[in-house]
Order: sequence, then C-alpha cells, then structure tokens
Amino acid sequence: MRRAEFEINEDQEEITSFLEEMSFGFLGTATPDGEPSMTPLNFVYVGGSIYFHGSRIGEKMTQLKKNQRVTFMAAKEYAVIPSYFSDPLMACPATAYFKSVRVDGHAVVVDDPAEKAAALEALMRKLQPEGGYKEIDSEDPDYIPRLKGVAVVRIDADRVIGKFKFGQNLKQPDRESITAQLAERGLPQDAETIALMNRYCPHAKEATGE
Amino acid sequence: MRRAEFEINEDQEEITSFLEEMSFGFLGTATPDGEPSMTPLNFVYVGGSIYFHGSRIGEKMTQLKKNQRVTFMAAKEYAVIPSYFSDPLMACPATAYFKSVRVDGHAVVVDDPAEKAAALEALMRKLQPEGGYKEIDSEDPDYIPRLKGVAVVRIDADRVIGKFKFGQNLKQPDRESITAQLAERGLPQDAETIALMNRYCPHAKEATGE
Repeated sequence: MRRAEFEINEDQEEITSFLEEMSFGFLGTATPDGEPSMTPLNFVYVGGSIYFHGSRIGEKMTQLKKNQRVTFMAAKEYAVIPSYFSDPLMACPATAYFKSVRVDGHAVVVDDPAEKAAALEALMRKLQPEGGYKEIDSEDPDYIPRLKGVAVVRIDADRVIGKFKFGQNLKQPDRESITAQLAERGLPQDAETIALMNRYCPHAKEATGE
Repeated sequence: MRRAEFEINEDQEEITSFLEEMSFGFLGTATPDGEPSMTPLNFVYVGGSIYFHGSRIGEKMTQLKKNQRVTFMAAKEYAVIPSYFSDPLMACPATAYFKSVRVDGHAVVVDDPAEKAAALEALMRKLQPEGGYKEIDSEDPDYIPRLKGVAVVRIDADRVIGKFKFGQNLKQPDRESITAQLAERGLPQDAETIALMNRYCPHAKEATGE
C-alpha cells in the first residue's frame, strides 16, 4: 500500500470525486498514550475539510477532547484479482484493486451555528439528494435548538493521501492479459475495474496516446 | 454509535459470519505519543483472531513495531433512511443502517512458518474460493522462500464490539412505517435491509413470536 506508483495525491479532482461518491468512512483516533480507536461515520467533504456529526456526549467526542490528531479514511474495493490470472500455480499474485483516500489532520469542534448548518446541509444534499426536507438554516427557529443539540466536527487536513491501486505497476502485456480475463469473467465490478485500469495506468495512456 | 441497543457483542456467530463476508477492513494504529494512522487491508478471521499480511518493510510494520495496540474494523452500509420516511419537514431523522465489527487488541508478528501458511491459505480460501492455486504449505519448497518474504500479522483480540444498527430503537409503528417505505422504494439494498430490521429488532421478535 505504500508504493508511490499507486498514489494520486496530486490529483485533487479525483480525490474530491471519490470522497463525494463515498457515503461513509472511518475516523481513527488515539489516546495521548497511543491507544487507537475507530468509528464508522457518514461524512461530507467541503472546501478541503471532512465534516461529520454526532452526539455531543458520545465516545467520539470524548476521544477528540483528549487528542485532536485524527485520521480519516474512505476506501472502496473493486475487483479481486485471482492468482491464476497471472500464475497457474502459486497463490502469491492474488490481490485486490481499490481506491482509498486518507486525510490526516486535526479535529475541530464547530461552534459557529452557520458553519454547523452549512455542513449538515451539505451532508443532507449528499445522502438525500432527492430533497424532501426543509433546508437546514442556522436562523430557522425550527433548527436552532437541533443545531445546538448536535456536535459537528471539522477535520482540518494536514495531508491528504490518495491511493488508487489498479495494476499501475504491471508491464503492458500482463496488464492486457488481466483486463482480458476480467472481461471474460464479467463479475459486477469487473467492467468498471477495467475502465479504471485503463484510466490510471501510465502505460495505457502512452499506448492510446492520451 | 455508542448506544447499547445496537450492540450484538454476545452473538459470536453473527460477528464471525459478518467478518467472513467482508473481504476487507481497516487497521488502526497509533504512535506511542498518540498520532493515529489507518490502512485498508484484506483480512481473514480465524479462531477469534484477525490475520493480515503485507510487506515486511512497509509503513504498517514500522507502526506496529512502535506500538502493538491496534484496532481493526470492518463495516458495511445498508439502506440510507431519508428524513421524510419519518418527518415531512425536518432533516434530523435522516440516518443510515449498517453493520460494523471492531476488534481491539494487540498485533503479533507471526514467525512460525506453519501458522503463516495456514493464515495465508485461509485468506486465499476466503478471497479465491474457486481455487486455482497450489495449496499454501510451509513445507512446500516453492512456498518456503515466499513465506519468508512476507509479513503475516495476527491481532489477538482484547475485545470484539459488534454494532448492527437496524432501527432497533424504533417503536413498532414507526418501524413498520419505515419497512413499508423501504419496500415501496425498492433500491438494491432495501429488501436486505428490511430482512435485517426484522431479524435484529426485539419488537419484531415479540410480534412474530420468534
């Protein structure tokens, strides 16, 4: 996972697009003496920051009061690549292709009602794009007490690391062999995986003149 | 997420079944002074322990050498429940149903070749159940050097926390209203979500005499 050829850190558009597509991710926290914890949560990525909400008195908030350093990750697995796609005998080449984005940063509890409202409205538009609710507005008397009652946290990013693994390190003939076998297998995610292999592979770009 | 009504910690069968179904999860680590990190990885759950593998010289192993305390989580989101299923006006009831299992424990680097081989073989059977490779055996000369070259890590669990959120806290009429609206909506995960709402809800069990 550490290999530089999978990193797409420079491509903010790809990272933003992936974070907009993913409805949930994982918050990683740690106590000051190094005990890690993790929480799954719905989130929204606005203006380069992750926002999430939760109970004002829950475990998450207790953790964040002790240590503001956090990590946040969203990841999606695409095709599992069986070993026999490249080796008739050994199990070793078996792998899985994925996208992951990790945001390392500092958690800030949002107090400003307008920022809380904007973050929650952005979350609603992401998870309930069809609407069907009154827009969240910090000056709406119906929402004022609700906004007070919920905790909203912003993660200010120190660094954002995107890793999209789609066989970028493969030599061209090996890559062609894998895409051909994925096409033949035809599982639900295989067609999308082929498209992403072509999209992210430097060899493919050279080959197609992109 | 902290609420006890979602916890299914006593049900080891449900937890095991979920961990067998999920092909990947997230390892949470922390430096001794509290800087959290997270890594997505394929894993297998064998005998109450999580196993994963990786490079012997990567970031994960560097982290684990500094601090053995880890957390591991796998989670899956089911239906997103829009606010208008229960409130025509306010956005607040919007939520998402999910399963998550978190394993807090200690990471142990596995040195015994037989245990390494057994863990990797279990991982292969999980991710490549159709076979198509030579069984991983620590006494097989083809595998001996490969086993030496890969790091296998076991997480010995101090505690396992399962949270399955499927509206267990809803009153029966509200729950029936939501299942009816999920059935009418009919998105891909809605039917499975209805089944899980019925399965995990104490009221449903009472109502159906289970």
